[in-house]
Amino acid sequence: MIESGRPPVEAMTNPRADRVRDVAKLVGRSGRLKRRQFLAEGPQSVREALKAHSECLAAGGSPVVEALYATVECLKRYPELLEAASTPGTRLQVRIASEMVLSAMTDTVTPQGVVAVCNFVDVPLDAVLASKPKLIAMLCQVRDPGNAGTVLRAADAAGADAVIFSHSSVDIYNPKAVRATAGSLFHLPVVLGADVAEVVAAAKAAGVGVLAADGYGHLNLDLLQDESAARAFDQQIPDSSYALEDPTLWLFGNEAQGLAGEEKALADHRVAVPVYGEAESLNLGTAATVCLYASARAQRRAG
Amino acid sequence: MIESGRPPVEAMTNPRADRVRDVAKLVGRSGRLKRRQFLAEGPQSVREALKAHSECLAAGGSPVVEALYATVECLKRYPELLEAASTPGTRLQVRIASEMVLSAMTDTVTPQGVVAVCNFVDVPLDAVLASKPKLIAMLCQVRDPGNAGTVLRAADAAGADAVIFSHSSVDIYNPKAVRATAGSLFHLPVVLGADVAEVVAAAKAAGVGVLAADGYGHLNLDLLQDESAARAFDQQIPDSSYALEDPTLWLFGNEAQGLAGEEKALADHRVAVPVYGEAESLNLGTAATVCLYASARAQRRAG
Repeated sequence: MIESGRPPVEAMTNPRADRVRDVAKLVGRSGRLKRRQFLAEGPQSVREALKAHSECLAAGGSPVVEALYATVECLKRYPELLEAASTPGTRLQVRIASEMVLSAMTDTVTPQGVVAVCNFVDVPLDAVLASKPKLIAMLCQVRDPGNAGTVLRAADAAGADAVIFSHSSVDIYNPKAVRATAGSLFHLPVVLGADVAEVVAAAKAAGVGVLAADGYGHLNLDLLQDESAARAFDQQIPDSSYALEDPTLWLFGNEAQGLAGEEKALADHRVAVPVYGEAESLNLGTAATVCLYASARAQRRAG
Repeated sequence: MIESGRPPVEAMTNPRADRVRDVAKLVGRSGRLKRRQFLAEGPQSVREALKAHSECLAAGGSPVVEALYATVECLKRYPELLEAASTPGTRLQVRIASEMVLSAMTDTVTPQGVVAVCNFVDVPLDAVLASKPKLIAMLCQVRDPGNAGTVLRAADAAGADAVIFSHSSVDIYNPKAVRATAGSLFHLPVVLGADVAEVVAAAKAAGVGVLAADGYGHLNLDLLQDESAARAFDQQIPDSSYALEDPTLWLFGNEAQGLAGEEKALADHRVAVPVYGEAESLNLGTAATVCLYASARAQRRAG
């Protein structure tokens, strides 16, 4: 549909067209829930969506990407997008659209030239626990889409096996959250709408330890890390309260209040990232990253 | 000025008053530079500003807070603010203002009931290096106020001795940046408008090693951490490329492009936070936190 040198014939230019309004409905939660679809915007997110799409189809699964809209300029600048969409197994048609049309489809002032309509990618909790996970992050009552996306991205970087969102958390399919994941939403299994107590019970039954990230926690993350390193170096150490190298589910709470009392009570231990300066605490994204990397480091050293 | 039970006589209620407009000018960079003042909003920031203010006065320094505006409701809810402002050594008058007035003074839709006009708190580079620092964070060409504030807060939590911003970075006195620091702007020395090459040269001359945070760096942060732990446990280890327990200046780059080539070239080493999953990278705030905590942990273990 894109030809060298001149714009293709079928370019969508009317921002008020039915199809455009239809895509734009996915900016809102009710529109997403109705169709079980969401939007991935910008070259990075769309590239990862297309990668997940072709991997999923190759494995006999269902399509991740349903439709792709892009400007001519974007496809020229990122030819790999067109290539990824056009491979025989992928069967995706790229619709050329104007900047105005893309802008009308999304909630961004400056769309980055490409939007993919994607099917929901979340999986059931059972599927995650059946895969013998070593590291899981669960977000409880997290409200800010940027924070949710940042933690998902950090969990991906730390090599976590899954991220779970409680039912009272922000919708990870919110366009702001999707953007903040920088493509990580398509990298690892995500469970949505989960009940904290059920997740904790299921994790414990599957042999996964449960740690609550809590600024006032009785265990110090840096001490746990030192104990873990000491074990790796065959040092005699007193007695370890929790071995970070063991399979672990981390619970992270709301950005303002942290975890609720009853959520903390469900965990095996409450663990604090030590604060060495005068700051009252770390913010959610940075605290979660430090916790997840501590586990990742210990698990990789051990295993 | 606040009396129990009824609103005080002198409450400011006109959002168009000259004094209100005068304060509102500090929302913009030119207004801030002209008066060398900025705004701290909300109970947490103002509490830390008042603490810094009284400590500074007690040490014979100049005032940090110049004026304080608050709603009656806020002072009732946070009586410690009124108390901190009213101690004999502090000499601050709290002006009661309506929500509308506070809203007109700031750029927030829902002001949190209290605003302090503060004098610039940044210090010269020489003062930082003369204090024998062990851990410094420098942000080079960081553009987003939220990111700048998040890294400052993380540096404070990690017990860093100072944070330095390059001249091309976002203004840390921007209200969004101040909010993201969550009070940390008043906790540790901040240097503004610095030249990266000059800072690196001065740091090296002061015996401080320089590490560039770089996703493609030749050193792996987790290996450096393991080497540091091994030294602490008196293990025989091959040869260490850099001892994290040594005094260190970390360079962090722009959120989209990272550090520029010439900035990386200035550092002793380029260090990557390892990515164990499929994520392309961590975002600036989370990467900086992992790096700073790695140094903090090593230095505390050693010291």
